[in-house]
Amino acid sequence: MRFASYEQGGNTGIAVAKGDHWHGLTTADASYPGTLQQLIEAGDAALSQAAAALAAAPVVDLRQVRLIPPLSSPEKIICIGLNYIDHSAESGFKQPDYPTIFARFNSSLIGDGAPILRPAVSDQLDYEGELVAVIGKTGRHVSEATALDHVAGYSIFNDASIRDFQFKAPQWTPGKNFDDTGAFGPWFVTADELPAGCEGLKLQTRLNGQVVQEASISDMVFPVAKLVALLSSFLTLKPGDLIVTGTPSGVGLARKPPLWMKAGDVCEVEIEGIGVLSNPIRDSDERKEALVA
Amino acid sequence: MRFASYEQGGNTGIAVAKGDHWHGLTTADASYPGTLQQLIEAGDAALSQAAAALAAAPVVDLRQVRLIPPLSSPEKIICIGLNYIDHSAESGFKQPDYPTIFARFNSSLIGDGAPILRPAVSDQLDYEGELVAVIGKTGRHVSEATALDHVAGYSIFNDASIRDFQFKAPQWTPGKNFDDTGAFGPWFVTADELPAGCEGLKLQTRLNGQVVQEASISDMVFPVAKLVALLSSFLTLKPGDLIVTGTPSGVGLARKPPLWMKAGDVCEVEIEGIGVLSNPIRDSDERKEALVA
Repeated sequence: MRFASYEQGGNTGIAVAKGDHWHGLTTADASYPGTLQQLIEAGDAALSQAAAALAAAPVVDLRQVRLIPPLSSPEKIICIGLNYIDHSAESGFKQPDYPTIFARFNSSLIGDGAPILRPAVSDQLDYEGELVAVIGKTGRHVSEATALDHVAGYSIFNDASIRDFQFKAPQWTPGKNFDDTGAFGPWFVTADELPAGCEGLKLQTRLNGQVVQEASISDMVFPVAKLVALLSSFLTLKPGDLIVTGTPSGVGLARKPPLWMKAGDVCEVEIEGIGVLSNPIRDSDERKEALVA
Repeated sequence: MRFASYEQGGNTGIAVAKGDHWHGLTTADASYPGTLQQLIEAGDAALSQAAAALAAAPVVDLRQVRLIPPLSSPEKIICIGLNYIDHSAESGFKQPDYPTIFARFNSSLIGDGAPILRPAVSDQLDYEGELVAVIGKTGRHVSEATALDHVAGYSIFNDASIRDFQFKAPQWTPGKNFDDTGAFGPWFVTADELPAGCEGLKLQTRLNGQVVQEASISDMVFPVAKLVALLSSFLTLKPGDLIVTGTPSGVGLARKPPLWMKAGDVCEVEIEGIGVLSNPIRDSDERKEALVA
């Protein structure tokens, strides 16, 4: 099953894919089944039931509505750094034997098609194409063997980073949390439609059509099952929590000269079997004002 | 005004201080005014109105109910590291010219009186007494001059840290996010009852009655107004967001030999004019099982 979250005429909607079409309902419809967050919390049966009900709903053209992040307010956005060996090397970090874990706040999230904003204070806007695992079931001290039972499904993330702000202090939080930099979507695909842990799927990031990152999900140092087990060793994972699993080599920071995203660019992250997350780059309003002044 | 959040008989309650007593209502009462999060979102007038209504409600003995964090699900818990010069030195970090910023997830929060849990996987459980600023008004690109208008009030935090997990990888997230380690409370005090930015107030942490940290809020490298301005330069601050402003010197990690908290200890953090946040230390269930096995 594939679910997309959207906004239309001020109402929140949810759509399911059936054949070549999407079928959706919004909060304006009496039979609106709830947000994807609510359905995931309600469990697998609720998700299947909603999919069946939505399949009978009117066709919705996703190009005519505003896609929003599949989940807009997860309790946690847990991001993994340095999870591909080549990327650790290009970033000047030794590959740690424990994953590097940082957080995004919900305030940085945008959906597919929404502009990633280049702020006034920096030119160093970089892309990072990543696989997202969405937790479906509460878990603490989950074993690696049963970890994938806790994953409801997958999506795509562009963990756009402001590099100079990432490295201003020992912790990366500012460079990873500018408003309108966490692109998430285009939709959510349930785990049963994909290989276990997305192993073997190809991830590709394109900037203005040029391939800038390419890797197999199998190249991860800490695969999805390992991450779920390891994270749950210190915190309780809950339905709707996101694990943003890290980016492969090829980021703009590591290039000579560095390759920064700028207004007018389009960045796409594609994961085989999931879809393409596409976002234009725009200057923030303050940046535009600064240019005029 | 002082507001406490609590649970009684399975219902969530909110209480206001009047003279020597607290007066409260729960979700079981028809006139329950809403959670503190909802009141802060609704604005100053709503907060004052709720305080007036609560003052006429029955007396509630806070020792007879379960205190919960004043706010249980803020969108952001923004933590500041190395914000007192002495603590940066004792931790082996050079004082950066930009604040060190990391995140806690809501899943780590507990209220006053609830046990801070020592996990099975580590003995290195450390205390960090801190001032919390609670945002009252949405803001982006807030100037330092108007920053304190965005702060609804203050509370106290014990940013209990699992030190070996904090330093397993370049980012501190795991050591700062074990379940049941983020003690927050005992209550919330509106900004008008305290000096601007809490300047000059004394912070003291006591472990089993022994003073282990003592500082003035004025010793912060980046005071509250500066933090609000600086954080809002990259993200939108929203009502209910927490800024956990950092800890002074005296942590257990920096002592020779190190001083770790253990089951049976009681850790108190007191900030003059706000109150005392007190939490016992307990072993987690897995730790207890491991000891028996």
